[in-house]
Amino acid sequence: MNPAALVFDAYGTLFDVHAVVQRCEAFWPGKGAQLSALWRAKQLEWTWQRSLMRRYLPFSQLTGDALGYACEALGLACDDARSGALMDEYRRLATYSDVPDALARLHADGCKLAILTNGSPDMIIPLVAHHGMQSLFDAVLSVDELKIYKPAPEVYRLAAKRLGLPSNAIGFVSSNGWDALGAKSFGLRAWWINRGGAPLDRLGFAPDGLLAGLGELPAALAG
Amino acid sequence: MNPAALVFDAYGTLFDVHAVVQRCEAFWPGKGAQLSALWRAKQLEWTWQRSLMRRYLPFSQLTGDALGYACEALGLACDDARSGALMDEYRRLATYSDVPDALARLHADGCKLAILTNGSPDMIIPLVAHHGMQSLFDAVLSVDELKIYKPAPEVYRLAAKRLGLPSNAIGFVSSNGWDALGAKSFGLRAWWINRGGAPLDRLGFAPDGLLAGLGELPAALAG
Repeated sequence: MNPAALVFDAYGTLFDVHAVVQRCEAFWPGKGAQLSALWRAKQLEWTWQRSLMRRYLPFSQLTGDALGYACEALGLACDDARSGALMDEYRRLATYSDVPDALARLHADGCKLAILTNGSPDMIIPLVAHHGMQSLFDAVLSVDELKIYKPAPEVYRLAAKRLGLPSNAIGFVSSNGWDALGAKSFGLRAWWINRGGAPLDRLGFAPDGLLAGLGELPAALAG
Repeated sequence: MNPAALVFDAYGTLFDVHAVVQRCEAFWPGKGAQLSALWRAKQLEWTWQRSLMRRYLPFSQLTGDALGYACEALGLACDDARSGALMDEYRRLATYSDVPDALARLHADGCKLAILTNGSPDMIIPLVAHHGMQSLFDAVLSVDELKIYKPAPEVYRLAAKRLGLPSNAIGFVSSNGWDALGAKSFGLRAWWINRGGAPLDRLGFAPDGLLAGLGELPAALAG
């Protein structure tokens, strides 16, 4: 049976963060990839560590802190102008090329759609608006109202609660294996978009389905 | 006022994991450093993710899983013999060269000493026994009895509870900045051993002291 609603992770799943990497490279030639990787690693680590410490900080601030750390670690100078420009990129990221058609088709088929993101409202609301996608989604949900990050079960429960559906009627889609498995652990059905061909995280669960891109989802659900 | 007790992280703080890296290099020439780094990264990520998911797995099993993941990601073959040999290394890691003298001096000064580790008892108890250090420590505490990993406050609370001391009478020492800050966030006093010269994690707290090695601790406390 098809899910009554599909809930999507945002960054790396619907929206391509490559523009941020490019901007890093433009600011610090030859260092863009290394800086982006360390920035992303610290950003994620701190979401988990702060959640466990019960010291939540909104994703926009945490992301800015992680940029500062990464620049400090690599000996790169970062002023407010560069930091601001990089954070602005997050508010106008492109979607992956197959995303608009796939979402339009799922929406036309009568499936409820939602976003469930670590991103704070000051990041995700402008990004969705930038693409004029507000009307596609029944809900744009941020962990910010819970003050705890993925993969805590409270986060996935928020989607079920807000959509008014039993957890097994909801399909969750993420390009982060651990995010898909966090949803699965809570009780949602889970699809993992494995664009990079990485092994599955060993967290005691398997996703319900594996996709190479979001464009495969409508057919995977119909099949 | 000096702390009445000092509580130490184990791996990377008292015990040098370099032997594991060397063994990786011996098994997979030219790949040891890359494998060790990915192995360690996944090991830590999963402690945080499983804690948030409330899907605890003992550190020995999680560490074995992370080795399997890292080998799969890098296309390296790993059989039970190699995996077993690497896990055995964890049970006989060397201490850093300045550790025995520093611990002996602190013990002689009447300071209670303890270990507080993510390591499960099947890893940490043999390691302490291998060094004949049982009598040095008032307690060897593992997160295993709580089924949640650092930096959750419950972990640091365990040290205060088991040592029967108020939290501000306990000094916690770790080479992981986030671990020192997790202890600080709970209310212990915290010393960070920054062997690698890394920036401080931006988690909203600062350690009470910074050390280049454990050998500096007795003088830092006396100073």
